[in-house]
Amino acid sequence: MSITSDEVNYLVFRYLQESGFHHTAFAFSHEGQIGRTNIDPAAVAPGALVSYLQKGLQYASIEAHLNDDGTEASCDEPFGLTI
Amino acid sequence: MSITSDEVNYLVFRYLQESGFHHTAFAFSHEGQIGRTNIDPAAVAPGALVSYLQKGLQYASIEAHLNDDGTEASCDEPFGLTI
Amino acid sequence: MSITSDEVNYLVFRYLQESGFHHTAFAFSHEGQIGRTNIDPAAVAPGALVSYLQKGLQYASIEAHLNDDGTEASCDEPFGLTI
Amino acid sequence: MSITSDEVNYLVFRYLQESGFHHTAFAFSHEGQIGRTNIDPAAVAPGALVSYLQKGLQYASIEAHLNDDGTEASCDEPFGLTI
Repeated sequence: MSITSDEVNYLVFRYLQESGFHHTAFAFSHEGQIGRTNIDPAAVAPGALVSYLQKGLQYASIEAHLNDDGTEASCDEPFGLTI
Repeated sequence: MSITSDEVNYLVFRYLQESGFHHTAFAFSHEGQIGRTNIDPAAVAPGALVSYLQKGLQYASIEAHLNDDGTEASCDEPFGLTI
Repeated sequence: MSITSDEVNYLVFRYLQESGFHHTAFAFSHEGQIGRTNIDPAAVAPGALVSYLQKGLQYASIEAHLNDDGTEASCDEPFGLTI
Repeated sequence: MSITSDEVNYLVFRYLQESGFHHTAFAFSHEGQIGRTNIDPAAVAPGALVSYLQKGLQYASIEAHLNDDGTEASCDEPFGLTI
């Protein structure tokens, strides 16, 4: 269950496209050689990048707030992708 | 614990930079107005996007293989970001 | 009657726009800082770059086919911008 | 002695490269399909675009200041690419 850079690039490319960043998507399609991937476009749901990031943030939050004995640490700090 | 598009854009921008996609990063810095964000660059670790995607994939895998009674479903299928 | 790089850049930018090279025009508007020019857009006719290149090619052709005594050299060679 | 769009594109591409507009040159190489041209790179001198524009401006100036009888019109107005 590992991640390849081809997969990350494809998710990023789809995010750029779906978000209307057309110039960036154009540059990335060439610089990232997105066309050479053998990922099936139909297998990637719209919003996949954001959906995985949300799950990833949730996972990170669980990790961060778990005590060694399995109980949950109480915490009032904000928790987010870039904090 | 929600995600803003500013945060996603910034993680994507950093990924593009760190991966050497300089033309794409240039386009995105302008099209995504990355300079206008108030995210603290120092607060975002190198490799953050991939790290969150990995956790997100793990979370998705747990969700996908959990039976209703809390036991783990046995499964031989490949599981990945774009499958 | 000299040419500034601001002028060349602006003619190139207009050419890119008018020719439908939208991604390139986007990149150039930022990389060439076209917005900072004080050239009056209304003063530049559509097709200006190509029109000047055509006159320039004509001028170069006259130069190339003029004998020292002012008469025209006969010549059957092709003559063009990139030859 | 005509000009093709392939020729104009190639001169513009070389100008972008020589002037250090690397992101724009990257976008144009793909959007303008510069690689598909059959122009010989060695046949195009450095600075070709600007050189032709200078000759074109000179030609335009001669045209603009020529009286019908072949004498030169006196004129104190500035004359330039974007005026």
